[in-house]
Amino acid sequence: MLVLAAQAVHWRAGRRLVVTGGLLRSWVAGANDPDGDFPLNNLPCGVFSPPGGAPRCGVAIGDNVLDVAALEGAGLLAIGPGPLLARPAWNDLMAAGQPVWRALRARLTALLAEGAAERETVAPHLTPLAAATLHLPFDVAEYTDFYAGRQHAVNVGTMFRGAENALPPNWLHIPIGYNGRASTVVVSGTPVRRPLGQTRAPDADAPSFGPSRRLDIELELGAVVGQPSRMGEPVTVAQADAMIFGYVLLNDWSARDIQAWEYQPLGPFQAKAFATTISPWIVTRAALDPFRTPTPARETPLLPYLREPGPLGYDIALSVEMRPAGSDRATVISRTNARELYYASAQQLAHHASSGCAMRVGDLLGSGTISGPDSTAYGSLLELTWGGKEPLTLATGETRSFIEDGDTLSLRGHAQGAGFRIGFGPCDGAILPAPQFPTEN
Amino acid sequence: MLVLAAQAVHWRAGRRLVVTGGLLRSWVAGANDPDGDFPLNNLPCGVFSPPGGAPRCGVAIGDNVLDVAALEGAGLLAIGPGPLLARPAWNDLMAAGQPVWRALRARLTALLAEGAAERETVAPHLTPLAAATLHLPFDVAEYTDFYAGRQHAVNVGTMFRGAENALPPNWLHIPIGYNGRASTVVVSGTPVRRPLGQTRAPDADAPSFGPSRRLDIELELGAVVGQPSRMGEPVTVAQADAMIFGYVLLNDWSARDIQAWEYQPLGPFQAKAFATTISPWIVTRAALDPFRTPTPARETPLLPYLREPGPLGYDIALSVEMRPAGSDRATVISRTNARELYYASAQQLAHHASSGCAMRVGDLLGSGTISGPDSTAYGSLLELTWGGKEPLTLATGETRSFIEDGDTLSLRGHAQGAGFRIGFGPCDGAILPAPQFPTEN
Repeated sequence: MLVLAAQAVHWRAGRRLVVTGGLLRSWVAGANDPDGDFPLNNLPCGVFSPPGGAPRCGVAIGDNVLDVAALEGAGLLAIGPGPLLARPAWNDLMAAGQPVWRALRARLTALLAEGAAERETVAPHLTPLAAATLHLPFDVAEYTDFYAGRQHAVNVGTMFRGAENALPPNWLHIPIGYNGRASTVVVSGTPVRRPLGQTRAPDADAPSFGPSRRLDIELELGAVVGQPSRMGEPVTVAQADAMIFGYVLLNDWSARDIQAWEYQPLGPFQAKAFATTISPWIVTRAALDPFRTPTPARETPLLPYLREPGPLGYDIALSVEMRPAGSDRATVISRTNARELYYASAQQLAHHASSGCAMRVGDLLGSGTISGPDSTAYGSLLELTWGGKEPLTLATGETRSFIEDGDTLSLRGHAQGAGFRIGFGPCDGAILPAPQFPTEN
Repeated sequence: MLVLAAQAVHWRAGRRLVVTGGLLRSWVAGANDPDGDFPLNNLPCGVFSPPGGAPRCGVAIGDNVLDVAALEGAGLLAIGPGPLLARPAWNDLMAAGQPVWRALRARLTALLAEGAAERETVAPHLTPLAAATLHLPFDVAEYTDFYAGRQHAVNVGTMFRGAENALPPNWLHIPIGYNGRASTVVVSGTPVRRPLGQTRAPDADAPSFGPSRRLDIELELGAVVGQPSRMGEPVTVAQADAMIFGYVLLNDWSARDIQAWEYQPLGPFQAKAFATTISPWIVTRAALDPFRTPTPARETPLLPYLREPGPLGYDIALSVEMRPAGSDRATVISRTNARELYYASAQQLAHHASSGCAMRVGDLLGSGTISGPDSTAYGSLLELTWGGKEPLTLATGETRSFIEDGDTLSLRGHAQGAGFRIGFGPCDGAILPAPQFPTEN
């Protein structure tokens, strides 16, 4: 079958040999552009409003978004016994399980393929992306953030503890993570207020309270959990991999000055709680399967419960752009790749459930900051400016140690196929000035 | 008005002078028992199933639970424009806001008071508590756990870092907390599986994976957030206090060996993720108002955003009991009081929102372990047995350093009025053996 063949991957000795197949051609405008984010091979899942309309589930294809909720309503999908796309969130469809995920992908691939007999029926359900308003693609159940970028951990550890003690003793054994705050996960394009918080200057006796002065990004991949696990029942890495519905880009905004003062001994809290931005499209695991790659070589073997049954990483090119207020010139400040992650999302998810922690449909797992080995490939300003000591010069001539009010930060990512790419769409956020603390009770 | 007068409290120079009024008498069996948990003064909110029935909202009164969902359905409450108790969770009512909370309390107080004209109409909606099955009283939106017990922080710090460095430098300035896992918050009576996890023995080169051998409790109070705050908009301590709907007892089960190996630098994760047990009744802030007390004296003034506008602590007597499998003899292993908490829940909530973190209806905030100044008043086995070095002897003659399979741990709490008490009901959990790790993919 064409669809499956186009996604087949061959492995030998843990290395990817061949990605068979190329672009799946579609009749939709823009879908066959080799530099477009959304070819027929992709079919990422989002929530959009057409002009004047209410939010609904959609799938990006070329320059358009397909109203799959309307298709389901019209009886053109027939993927489940009841409606799975009636709410403006993908949670119900995710909860329906892998056979339904596969059925939806196969059906949409058939409907949108070049020469599809249903073209006339489907076309009225397309809205130009330029006219669509995008929303969070799913209800975030809980949000967990990991710390799986080795170069990032080494960089931060070197700055804070010196090069000799850069990696914490547990780092090579545990996919370390902490629970984050789901209530402030927002979709690309949502402005973010600079946080207030408690900080203590290095030379101060006492802390003070005010706007963060070391506001930063973290370039991450986010895994969207599509199937649950039960309380008291751990899962294997292979089971965890199968539970993942897809991936988004994720910016874990971080206030470094608040973090430095608060994080001992219980970890990051308000330094990360004010906002997390994700890209609007869940790129499915199925679409990314041809781009799997083994996680990096290990100097210490993992405990059996964390071992990789097959390649679990992904070859996804990533970049960060920064654009000051009032300028239309963005500067690429970092280029890296998701294959740098020492632990894959499936390993993180298996660890998350290992204690018996119940995982939920809609859980979001941040990968941790993805930094490559050289200094142009770091995934945070903390690293790119080495703690603020080596400011960046932007294309506009301005310099930056950390983020200033009005700056827009944008993450981009795609997996490169032969003649097509699997893109994530934008993951952007502009920083607004800090709020006034309320004076009235 | 009788109801308000019965709850009036007078303050002078920050100290409670008088709790006016005493028991509010009710016609319901057991409600006038001075040692009962649920007099008319209490009216705590839970979810129950009558024999053979579905879960629904109920209010405990004496030896009974009142089916308030049925009362609302019969038009006997008239507290809101639409149904607020139709779902088996208190979130909708909480979201309706403080005027509705007050209206419900006033209406139930009138319906259940001695001599109430509505007695014949209301009585059929009572179910004996002994016949009711209790469920989680609300949908937990997100769960955050704090660390506000000073003696607990000193004890743990002394064991891990020595007496000189017991309190972290930020402790007297910040109500330190971390995000916990909402998916494993369970109601009293739910069995808890011993967690699996990664640990490293002090003399081992490498970690291993298996059942926790240092399983512990943490005695806490849980605050239930009943009103939201918006992203990017901090709240004052007074506003935070008004957002709290009520309180529960909370057992933050903790695997000390997993915690010790994983917690640096990102804080507790799988050591706490496997279970958190709460009591089945939300005791409302209104019911606890007469028992307010100032937080303890401070050696360092707080930053203005955290200062106490009036007494925010509560005088709530707390205890912990332990009962081995197969025995009916429980041993009280700790007695303490919630007034030990250095930071009140309202201060924790204001800190939580200070960065601009949006707070949600149904958020649960654990207070942190409540330990009193002497060694019979410690809120965890880690402290009671001083890291396992001084085992407890139970009434059965057995000894315990940490929890063994089959042990039941029970928290109890009440505020003592003149001739009545405001009780929380049970907060119990029995430990089941660790699961087998799955061998099949």
